[in-house]
Amino acid sequence: MKVGIVGLGLIGGSLGLDLRSRGYEILGVSRQATTCQIALDRGVVARASTDSSLLTEAEIVIICTPIGVIAPTLKQLTPYLSPKAIVTDVGSVKQPIVTACSQLWSNFVGGHPMAGTAEQGINAAQNNLFRGAAYVFTPTEQTLPSAVEKLEEMAHSLGAVTYTCSPEVHDRAVAWISHLPVMVSASLISACRSETEPEVLQLAQQLASSGFRDTSRVGGGNPELGMMMAKYNRQQLLRSLIQYRHNLDHMIDLIERENWHELEQILQSTQKARPEFLH
Amino acid sequence: MKVGIVGLGLIGGSLGLDLRSRGYEILGVSRQATTCQIALDRGVVARASTDSSLLTEAEIVIICTPIGVIAPTLKQLTPYLSPKAIVTDVGSVKQPIVTACSQLWSNFVGGHPMAGTAEQGINAAQNNLFRGAAYVFTPTEQTLPSAVEKLEEMAHSLGAVTYTCSPEVHDRAVAWISHLPVMVSASLISACRSETEPEVLQLAQQLASSGFRDTSRVGGGNPELGMMMAKYNRQQLLRSLIQYRHNLDHMIDLIERENWHELEQILQSTQKARPEFLH
Repeated sequence: MKVGIVGLGLIGGSLGLDLRSRGYEILGVSRQATTCQIALDRGVVARASTDSSLLTEAEIVIICTPIGVIAPTLKQLTPYLSPKAIVTDVGSVKQPIVTACSQLWSNFVGGHPMAGTAEQGINAAQNNLFRGAAYVFTPTEQTLPSAVEKLEEMAHSLGAVTYTCSPEVHDRAVAWISHLPVMVSASLISACRSETEPEVLQLAQQLASSGFRDTSRVGGGNPELGMMMAKYNRQQLLRSLIQYRHNLDHMIDLIERENWHELEQILQSTQKARPEFLH
Repeated sequence: MKVGIVGLGLIGGSLGLDLRSRGYEILGVSRQATTCQIALDRGVVARASTDSSLLTEAEIVIICTPIGVIAPTLKQLTPYLSPKAIVTDVGSVKQPIVTACSQLWSNFVGGHPMAGTAEQGINAAQNNLFRGAAYVFTPTEQTLPSAVEKLEEMAHSLGAVTYTCSPEVHDRAVAWISHLPVMVSASLISACRSETEPEVLQLAQQLASSGFRDTSRVGGGNPELGMMMAKYNRQQLLRSLIQYRHNLDHMIDLIERENWHELEQILQSTQKARPEFLH
């Protein structure tokens, strides 16, 4: 089967490496000729071009561009695609993308392979990036079941664990476990950094250890990723943030009123609940 | 030099192991005879007893009991101590302890060795637990400089890095980097767990990975530790929580108003600030 990959960065490149080794014929499209050459040299793709006409024979097309240009990229591609081509993407927010892309291409299925590294670009592409990772597809009522089946088969060939749900359910779920933690964690760093007594701030910086390190990790990460979450998943992130503020307010209130019994119950429930989110 | 250790758990036992190997003569006191026997068998102490009169010859006495019983333990010990004995403790909050203990023993110096494991008890005692760890002493205006010097010398023999500051500065600093993260992290778990749509909650639990894992770690830990922080460092924890809520409110407001420029500045500043807290 011929699979087109548009955007040859970490995700697109890693998909190409694995899918080629599973027998798919990979056609790569990048805006940059140098990226095409690296992809060819590294064996990421069978053929590569800066020209979208390379994709006319592709049965599946995976758009692996940054989230903000997924729909514009699809719009530019449509004249070149085979009428039966299944188009999917790898964006980490689904509702706005699925809404926009379904209007451009009826056989579009939103996708989100949940893997990555701190590195970016074609040179960071690696084998087995998706082994054991979650890969979510977000069909709508208009989606052809056969299209989802072909994409799931492809994802399973990568060793990924597939899930299907509506775009809205996806965006709410990732707001909780991926986007909310970034904002919670960034606010922790901002708050600590706002200490106005120099002696306290300096000592806090000297004494911080694994607890601060872990809790602040995602809030001290790539600002572009955080911006992308806030912009593209704004509604669901706000829903989670407002619920979070409610829980925080309740905790502050309990400590102010010295209601130790109820605070203990909360801390016991969080100790019990956390393993339900870990695998 | 003879050092008395009262409370032979993880911290007391580990102090005993290391200090013995550095040539200190360790006198251990525990409420339980079985603990005394294990301490003797493991070589944690030179002598052990359930009777506080063992400490009459100790030049330094380290109280390693749970935080809630440090002052009551000292009160019970004072009849047995040599008038020149330096008394210190290992509690993770300093102001209430220093205030109470200084009234009971004028030569008391608050201490906080910042090391530990998930294990507890004499059987968890280990060598070199304090190597490279921070060890804070919190003298007051009444403290004898020679007492601090002797304690610092002891801490340096463990390989610890010593800091001295007022009890209040200590409690403010640990509120930021140790106690606030627990409450922030626990509220994250509570918020996620409060999702009312079963499909969203289940998917969130399935998709949660390293970001959620790290941000939720300290909030899903031992409830007793969180309770101790809230009870004994209530005032400074509330100070940090209220500043944190202010930062969170500001972030929510920026996302609501789609003020992406300012949100990006915040996320850039947190990326830049985090390494100042790591070593």
